[in-house]
Amino acid sequence: MPKKLLLHHDRLFSSDEKQRAIARNLYQQVAHLPIISPHGHTDASWFSGNEPFSDAVELLIKPDHYVFRMLFSQGVSLEQLGIARMDGGPVEQDKRKTWQLFADNYPLFRGTPSRMWLDTVFSQVFGFEHALCSENADDYFDRINESLATDAFRPRALFERFNIEVLSTTESPLDNLEHHRKIAESGWAGRVISAYRPDPVVDPEFEGFVDAVNHLGELTGEDVSTFSGYLAAHRARRAFFKSTGVTSTDHGHPTALTLDLPTAEIEALYAIVRKGDATAAQAEVFRAHMLTEMAGMSLEDGLVMQLHPGSSRNHNASLFQQFGRDKGADIPLATSYVEQLKPLLDKYGNATDFTLILFTLDETTYSRELAPMAGHYPCLRVGPPWWFHDSPEGMRRFRQQVTETAGFYNTVGFNDDTRAFLSIPARHDVARRMDCNWLAELVCDHRLDMEEAEQIAFDLTYQLAKDAYKL
Amino acid sequence: MPKKLLLHHDRLFSSDEKQRAIARNLYQQVAHLPIISPHGHTDASWFSGNEPFSDAVELLIKPDHYVFRMLFSQGVSLEQLGIARMDGGPVEQDKRKTWQLFADNYPLFRGTPSRMWLDTVFSQVFGFEHALCSENADDYFDRINESLATDAFRPRALFERFNIEVLSTTESPLDNLEHHRKIAESGWAGRVISAYRPDPVVDPEFEGFVDAVNHLGELTGEDVSTFSGYLAAHRARRAFFKSTGVTSTDHGHPTALTLDLPTAEIEALYAIVRKGDATAAQAEVFRAHMLTEMAGMSLEDGLVMQLHPGSSRNHNASLFQQFGRDKGADIPLATSYVEQLKPLLDKYGNATDFTLILFTLDETTYSRELAPMAGHYPCLRVGPPWWFHDSPEGMRRFRQQVTETAGFYNTVGFNDDTRAFLSIPARHDVARRMDCNWLAELVCDHRLDMEEAEQIAFDLTYQLAKDAYKL
Amino acid sequence: MPKKLLLHHDRLFSSDEKQRAIARNLYQQVAHLPIISPHGHTDASWFSGNEPFSDAVELLIKPDHYVFRMLFSQGVSLEQLGIARMDGGPVEQDKRKTWQLFADNYPLFRGTPSRMWLDTVFSQVFGFEHALCSENADDYFDRINESLATDAFRPRALFERFNIEVLSTTESPLDNLEHHRKIAESGWAGRVISAYRPDPVVDPEFEGFVDAVNHLGELTGEDVSTFSGYLAAHRARRAFFKSTGVTSTDHGHPTALTLDLPTAEIEALYAIVRKGDATAAQAEVFRAHMLTEMAGMSLEDGLVMQLHPGSSRNHNASLFQQFGRDKGADIPLATSYVEQLKPLLDKYGNATDFTLILFTLDETTYSRELAPMAGHYPCLRVGPPWWFHDSPEGMRRFRQQVTETAGFYNTVGFNDDTRAFLSIPARHDVARRMDCNWLAELVCDHRLDMEEAEQIAFDLTYQLAKDAYKL
Repeated sequence: MPKKLLLHHDRLFSSDEKQRAIARNLYQQVAHLPIISPHGHTDASWFSGNEPFSDAVELLIKPDHYVFRMLFSQGVSLEQLGIARMDGGPVEQDKRKTWQLFADNYPLFRGTPSRMWLDTVFSQVFGFEHALCSENADDYFDRINESLATDAFRPRALFERFNIEVLSTTESPLDNLEHHRKIAESGWAGRVISAYRPDPVVDPEFEGFVDAVNHLGELTGEDVSTFSGYLAAHRARRAFFKSTGVTSTDHGHPTALTLDLPTAEIEALYAIVRKGDATAAQAEVFRAHMLTEMAGMSLEDGLVMQLHPGSSRNHNASLFQQFGRDKGADIPLATSYVEQLKPLLDKYGNATDFTLILFTLDETTYSRELAPMAGHYPCLRVGPPWWFHDSPEGMRRFRQQVTETAGFYNTVGFNDDTRAFLSIPARHDVARRMDCNWLAELVCDHRLDMEEAEQIAFDLTYQLAKDAYKL
Repeated sequence: MPKKLLLHHDRLFSSDEKQRAIARNLYQQVAHLPIISPHGHTDASWFSGNEPFSDAVELLIKPDHYVFRMLFSQGVSLEQLGIARMDGGPVEQDKRKTWQLFADNYPLFRGTPSRMWLDTVFSQVFGFEHALCSENADDYFDRINESLATDAFRPRALFERFNIEVLSTTESPLDNLEHHRKIAESGWAGRVISAYRPDPVVDPEFEGFVDAVNHLGELTGEDVSTFSGYLAAHRARRAFFKSTGVTSTDHGHPTALTLDLPTAEIEALYAIVRKGDATAAQAEVFRAHMLTEMAGMSLEDGLVMQLHPGSSRNHNASLFQQFGRDKGADIPLATSYVEQLKPLLDKYGNATDFTLILFTLDETTYSRELAPMAGHYPCLRVGPPWWFHDSPEGMRRFRQQVTETAGFYNTVGFNDDTRAFLSIPARHDVARRMDCNWLAELVCDHRLDMEEAEQIAFDLTYQLAKDAYKL
Repeated sequence: MPKKLLLHHDRLFSSDEKQRAIARNLYQQVAHLPIISPHGHTDASWFSGNEPFSDAVELLIKPDHYVFRMLFSQGVSLEQLGIARMDGGPVEQDKRKTWQLFADNYPLFRGTPSRMWLDTVFSQVFGFEHALCSENADDYFDRINESLATDAFRPRALFERFNIEVLSTTESPLDNLEHHRKIAESGWAGRVISAYRPDPVVDPEFEGFVDAVNHLGELTGEDVSTFSGYLAAHRARRAFFKSTGVTSTDHGHPTALTLDLPTAEIEALYAIVRKGDATAAQAEVFRAHMLTEMAGMSLEDGLVMQLHPGSSRNHNASLFQQFGRDKGADIPLATSYVEQLKPLLDKYGNATDFTLILFTLDETTYSRELAPMAGHYPCLRVGPPWWFHDSPEGMRRFRQQVTETAGFYNTVGFNDDTRAFLSIPARHDVARRMDCNWLAELVCDHRLDMEEAEQIAFDLTYQLAKDAYKL
């Protein structure tokens, strides 16, 4: 028998009455602030076309690798979920069946943030009052699809309902930002900007790298057969991105290695790289040097730089072959920053007009590396808990391990970093609750006074992200 | 003056009244469930012979490396504890004196799980009401020895009193499982099974490896001069173990490295290894390849595979020379799984009829590697907190760092993993209390409802271990 | 408008009333115990000369790298703080302006231990009742300077007021300990001793190493052109230090590597090293061997050995060039102990008359390496949370991760390790509060009884440091 949805107004607050009351008080002051979403992976075409989302499976399951990695871990195949195979092989087409399978396995998500995000979406976006289970899967499926067909559930309407002040997507330099342009020209007030993510033309190991670099040359009219032409092409695309309102770049690298090679050396390496002949070691060196180049360009054009290192992408070889990228098979790696970032920091670390936001999947670096570095270098900031750590316990560890050395003001607020558009308010809500609960603990044990906590709660929710990302 | 034994019925529960009440409620529902002990190191001969245990020192001190490592760290020699030297040199023979020394140093264990396990044994198994101290050491020694001489304290009687449903020991492939056979044939209802632990014939650096492999050949009639014969011998012994009711294998390796070498290469390496000529690097490669072979055999015969990597065994060189293995001188090493397990996972990771349970002594891998991997690969499960981390704080960290990414259902319940038979109920009790306390926290801050928490408490205590180990 | 200073008498205690009451009770028993400060970096000349401290900036900002690293991280230059440049270039001379800048940026320290230490100094040493802010910066500056000009604020008077029983400074072997001698001869009862910190004559990469070794030879009359003469010179200086009351040595190395080279090999290496020709790798080997030599000397002369490894010193290249050492630009490194300490431990690890206190900046080693090692080796003890981890959350993690495996009695109490003399009572107070709060938690959940907790609180505050450092 379906149970009531679990969405208590005091969720995530300490059960200590004193702390809970303070957390609640702080939360009430920030709960309704606009959402600043400075980094994420939603699809700009949703907001340019403003077409209705098609159905529950396409919207809530297929873009959410958190969901299907858990199902896959317990023996559900991606074919059963209807995920398209690269070879066009048969996969489940009956979405109702896929939804039922998801509902049957919903107990797997107990104790995970996905459960909390999904329940929040079910309750607050769709108005469900009972928790999803095998018995009501059909009803859920039908009611979600009915809602999605209405105007109130079109992308722009949801964007407005979610009180999003600005939303950043992430695009390759090869993207023409057509959808962002259309949005800007449409007269709609929603602010949807991109971020410059050059991995496809910076990482020699990215699928299709050589063609992508050639394409970059064509797009910009620069001669990418030389390294200086290649850099000029980056400058041109960065300028184009910036002209559309972009304020940041983003770099997804296997490691945090940076290098600053002599000109002759990087030119020689580039000659190898652009022919697609780089070894793995050469590819790593190239990426490392390019981070330093990108930092230099950020000093020139003012774009805020983000570094997301340390994911072993496509770890599951056969799954990658069958289904491609981003299928829940990326696994964190131990990551080190201290020696690896030194070449970049030796060159630009003391600049006060440059911001480099560091993310990590290796929580051991919070207290050992990131907080000490961000608590010293003017250019560095620590990004919020990322990916697997974007969760209540992950957020708690982040504040516990970062704050004492970096303070609050070397952090940058929250990123939802998501492809799951509907979960954006839920994710920001979890962050706001956990931050308020942490501040309440500091007030309870007299490390902060209430007035300070209120100010910090506002900054963590709103101001720090706006400032750090120049929004 | 002796003090009352500290064994409060609410021990380990949060001091927050709301959380404590929920934890107590959950605990009452699982406290008396039968014990599933799917991995440990008790001695099967105890249960086949059913002879009385000899005395307090032999039973409670000598098999417990937790106890003598702490005493040794504060200057007590193993000779004083009566631990036998390899050279037969003189050691303390007066057990009463050894017991007194232990009692005098009992305050060293404050804040450790050993203290809690021992107090539980003293109170619940022997009925003491006052805490062990210098003054009552003699009384303790006498009363324990008197009890042990009675029928109620024979191994089988204790096994039944402890409500153990199944107990797994761990044996080498060279073991004839005679005691397990005797137990099965005895008509006694107690279920005591073994686990296949092939380290002595898989690890070229194990003392006596060459002889052991020859012995393996003799036992099975296989030609272990060839690699295929060596594999066949493993298959034969696994089949023999399985025929006695065994459901799992266990592998204790210095690292988690796996490899899948081409046939010619592993055959050439085996030729070196079986002559005892392997270098350290070759030994590591051989062990790594053998893990993949063992995984393949598990797919054939259905035995659940356990991997316990990352212990620097016998770290104390002179102690090892004087006293041999397992004397409290094994120290954890930083361990990595992501790249190291890839060869095995590339081959068998997506199998849904294969289970590989991963353990770690490096807690940094919980959130960074093990939970993300087990939250994706169908074959992977995360084993419970192991060894130094089998403790209240260790269990808390485990749940906090594993649950959000792997959920509850990619974990496998509790292992006591002990040689200290009398402590088994105490260890399971600590796990049950800590799990209930964690679930109570999730209920208190509205991440789970009570009905779910009750279900999960049952699963963590009983069902997950039964299912994961096919018991 | 200035706010009341936040210095609640229950600060840092749990907000759970039961736990708070126990913590308060324990704290009241240790709050007024004398301070044992067995490791730190105050200046002995303060206590020999007993001249008044000059002003707020010289005393509270310039020696405190915690303070200026945070300001620097948010764009304040060291020039603005009046920190002297190596090239004598212009820096702010107006201390009132520097103080105002500090006050304006005081909110940056929210949530950091510096904030708590400074507020405690402002309140308890200087009697301020309102928190520092832009508006009262001038008043603060004037009142602090007025106080410092009075006899009650001279170094010896503060030492007595702080109830310091013994204070250890840290000096190079080349130091003549003149100030310590003067203090001893002055008839003043304050006990200020040094510690033997031989890095400048042990680390071939230390600035001026070759000259320093030559100087060491001159001071001792030993022939430092040979390795045996070099060792004899160390023995002579250790004996000299010991003769002034010194009880410990201290070693700041980039890693924890130890080695025990054959005589011919180390003699050959020394020949290279003392000419200043060592490569980085040779320097590392030399330092590693010297740790083992130092351990051997400790067995001879009884000096307690401290190892502080794992800091990447002077990470900020241009800042180092402009301002020199110790300017807040040292960053922790991942550190490993298990394999690295083995050569030293193989030689001296089981000695019961030798103490090696291990510190770490890498918290992952608490539960994985340091607690297991100190919980086994008789010579090893785990030092208190160090540097970035000398903070409420850092102390909590230390106890949570160390206690269960090492117990309390393989730890050594608290070190303040500071250059900021006035903060010493504040730092010890934070440690006492956090320890009492942790013990209160153990009492609340029935892991300790109250009488034990009282004993341990006393030991952690006073006895363990006295015993471990032979004070």
